[in-house]
Amino acid sequence: MEFSSKLLEKAVAEMSQLPGIGKRTALRLVLHLLRQPESQTEHLATSLHQMRTQIKHCKECYNISDVNLCEICASLNRNKNIVCVVEDVRDVMAIENTSQFKGLYHVLGGKISPMDGIGPHDLKITQLVERVALGEIEELIFALSASMEGDTTNFYIYKQLKGTNVQMSTIARGIGVNDEIEFADEITLGRSITNRIPLENSLKS
Amino acid sequence: MEFSSKLLEKAVAEMSQLPGIGKRTALRLVLHLLRQPESQTEHLATSLHQMRTQIKHCKECYNISDVNLCEICASLNRNKNIVCVVEDVRDVMAIENTSQFKGLYHVLGGKISPMDGIGPHDLKITQLVERVALGEIEELIFALSASMEGDTTNFYIYKQLKGTNVQMSTIARGIGVNDEIEFADEITLGRSITNRIPLENSLKS
Repeated sequence: MEFSSKLLEKAVAEMSQLPGIGKRTALRLVLHLLRQPESQTEHLATSLHQMRTQIKHCKECYNISDVNLCEICASLNRNKNIVCVVEDVRDVMAIENTSQFKGLYHVLGGKISPMDGIGPHDLKITQLVERVALGEIEELIFALSASMEGDTTNFYIYKQLKGTNVQMSTIARGIGVNDEIEFADEITLGRSITNRIPLENSLKS
Repeated sequence: MEFSSKLLEKAVAEMSQLPGIGKRTALRLVLHLLRQPESQTEHLATSLHQMRTQIKHCKECYNISDVNLCEICASLNRNKNIVCVVEDVRDVMAIENTSQFKGLYHVLGGKISPMDGIGPHDLKITQLVERVALGEIEELIFALSASMEGDTTNFYIYKQLKGTNVQMSTIARGIGVNDEIEFADEITLGRSITNRIPLENSLKS
């Protein structure tokens, strides 16, 4: 693309470094900003700058936070004996939305993925092992994605913690509550049969 | 969505004001920036800020430019008697890429679209009429989209300039050079028959 303005070209180039945004989309977004009041671009630029320079990670659970100890870790109403291990802040938000979990979290920051060059030391796994070593945690619930990478990460952490007293579980995989059985994929349906639960348990919830 | 950080929430809110970017996509983009070096976000924020505050519109053709008179208008190698009327800078870029047009441009900044609240006075139509009144322009080529809005805009400008000596044409609509006739839509195929050109003309180019 031949740009009539270096400033425009620069903005498009930076914008198109974002994942899933090509040059054409970037140009469309930037031209949109040019048609809007200057304040909109100012707010966008300032909020990105502040977010990147001022945001913190909670020193306990490594969730994104504005302060050193996040709201969840600082709360007196949470059960500190049970910790849910997740990939990133989006998983924390999703689980918090259910209002079903009253423990704490541990945000790994991703999953082991040699293809993407992410090894165990790029994640907060050592920090999880240290947290468990403090002795307060009784149970870890793994809520990683059911992929090769998720399973690898589960297994790696499992090996690290095998000798300790901590209980380890993963979230249940099965047919979604409103899903039709006939449309479920075979693997999910197979797992939901293997991991069937006593009827009286399912009636309780 | 419940955010664990106000800074994150702010950045996502600003990002999701861009067209076609919802809250979830915005969160994904912002989390991507958090994983990248701080310099990437800095460059993005700075380039957007500079673009929005420093970019100019050419005083002749209203194309986006870094200076008061754009490169095309300032060039001595362009034919100043013929002007192509387009919607925005993307059309200028597309036509420049063909290397087939050696005249100047006039960038309207959109097309008349009552549904979107865009009237003739939101576009650079008066400026085009004034440019024509200077007497140097002999031909205007309209290259607006073949939509209701494009046709309305063409017609509005045509009425304004009917009394002058300027010639007016629109770009040819027809079957694309590499397109199969059997797959062309009826309207395009119909137009390409109505607007057929003498065979010797088509052999020349």
